[in-house]
Amino acid sequence: MIHVFGHKVPDTDAVCSAIGYAHLLRELGKDAKAFRLGELNAETKLVLERFGVETPELLENAAGKDVWLMDHNEFGQSADGIEDANIIGVIDHHKIKFSYDKPITYIALPWGSSSTIVAKLYEIYGVEIPKHIAGCLLSAILSDTVIFKSPTTTETDREIAAKLAAIAGVDDMTAWGIEMFKAKSKIGEKSARDIVLNDYKVYEFGGRKILINQVEVIDDSEVLARKDEIIAEMQKIKEEQGLFAVLTMVTDIMKEGTTLLVVADDVAPIEKAFGKEIKDNAVWLPGVMSRKKQIVPPLEQVMA
Amino acid sequence: MIHVFGHKVPDTDAVCSAIGYAHLLRELGKDAKAFRLGELNAETKLVLERFGVETPELLENAAGKDVWLMDHNEFGQSADGIEDANIIGVIDHHKIKFSYDKPITYIALPWGSSSTIVAKLYEIYGVEIPKHIAGCLLSAILSDTVIFKSPTTTETDREIAAKLAAIAGVDDMTAWGIEMFKAKSKIGEKSARDIVLNDYKVYEFGGRKILINQVEVIDDSEVLARKDEIIAEMQKIKEEQGLFAVLTMVTDIMKEGTTLLVVADDVAPIEKAFGKEIKDNAVWLPGVMSRKKQIVPPLEQVMA
Repeated sequence: MIHVFGHKVPDTDAVCSAIGYAHLLRELGKDAKAFRLGELNAETKLVLERFGVETPELLENAAGKDVWLMDHNEFGQSADGIEDANIIGVIDHHKIKFSYDKPITYIALPWGSSSTIVAKLYEIYGVEIPKHIAGCLLSAILSDTVIFKSPTTTETDREIAAKLAAIAGVDDMTAWGIEMFKAKSKIGEKSARDIVLNDYKVYEFGGRKILINQVEVIDDSEVLARKDEIIAEMQKIKEEQGLFAVLTMVTDIMKEGTTLLVVADDVAPIEKAFGKEIKDNAVWLPGVMSRKKQIVPPLEQVMA
Repeated sequence: MIHVFGHKVPDTDAVCSAIGYAHLLRELGKDAKAFRLGELNAETKLVLERFGVETPELLENAAGKDVWLMDHNEFGQSADGIEDANIIGVIDHHKIKFSYDKPITYIALPWGSSSTIVAKLYEIYGVEIPKHIAGCLLSAILSDTVIFKSPTTTETDREIAAKLAAIAGVDDMTAWGIEMFKAKSKIGEKSARDIVLNDYKVYEFGGRKILINQVEVIDDSEVLARKDEIIAEMQKIKEEQGLFAVLTMVTDIMKEGTTLLVVADDVAPIEKAFGKEIKDNAVWLPGVMSRKKQIVPPLEQVMA
């Protein structure tokens, strides 16, 4: 059986692109099933509930299995045992750091979500998208493009989302997007540690490790009111993991910008990367919505 | 302008996939042009002549240019200055060893040729393939799949080749394929050095460098009659480049097998990889047609 899964610390795109692509593979006559590599966040749970889709099974280890990697390609973000899996293919929209010793299928497009690519593949194969799958894929597009506000959004994402919304019976994409983000950003109920590790990745730039976390909210005041508590937790995680820096992006999708919270051995490279002074562990970056496109590249350039 | 090019030491697939894809990009409204990274072989020259296509311009350096990599992805096989180019995308059917610091388009499929993928993209975009482009793409498929005899051949290659043959007015694909291979294997006119460096790649397995060359012929007797001269040249190249081994695959496409000529510091791992004894620097490998699929993987497995 073919195991289809997105990255660890799964978000809606990782989960829904896997559900959507596993269904397509089955329609094409393959024995395929979607899996997840961790706990679902509140947003993804809401999406699966609304469209009546079962939570994918947890995959503990990929060794010896036939697998498709969705929404990621770096082994560090993939399943345990991925080094010993038989990779059939990759579908992704992130930067590429991939090596494999035989020819496989690799489909990457610089679009707003991996679910956009999956929807396009249904079109190419001429397979009809059922209502529940359309709902999942649409929700993943809305999530990854921050309701089309992220600079990663392309014309293709908009076109495909409109088609999916029609199939899924979502009349108001923005209203549904805001409902999703509200579910994700129920900050009041979260511990400071859960906020700092909400949606994080660890990068290494020039030998220095940086954890970059993102919290997307409809109104940033609730999180920023807890700033001292969050900074203390970031400091703790930085020491625990021996990191150069811990960053938390508090992205306000209504204001269309990010408050970057910073704890670092040296803030100079971070200030240089964004051309702004960091005051009291924080800096406001207007227009910044995307970790991948607006935070990682300038940091990498300065620190590599 | 977008520069579209295949790998160094270009073969028909490298050149024709670039010609075909640059044309598609232009049809899609982009300013794109095909380039080559070296001298064309006699087979490719014949193909371009038959279908009335101009020889692409030589690209000396890719630094600072917008580029598409065709039929390769490893920087070592790519243009000089590739590290400083702006890569827009990759279309390929080889194993992957690729890293790039921003999201791009990467389309790889485990099909018999990159030109098959290019023809498929015309279909997906709904762009008509003109006669001369169809002829080039068809010829590249025939070349890379050894007229559908290589184990790398897929059903998709056969289907697409049939459609291209109809557009290009090629009534007998096999006859045209043999004519192409005859042009490529005019061994009588070649020096021993040109034979040994006919179509080669240098690999590194567990720190040991191996040059693997391939000569595809309709009748292997002409090359094998010059074996001593060729072995002496292989020995010379091995010393010049400080290699662990130099291999020459003399692939007879009619007999459907390869005589592997071997010069090595130690033949044991090579014998182990193929489960056969090497006598007088040579071993017959029935059914072996593909360096990528049948020579590289077993060597890598034994030596890594």
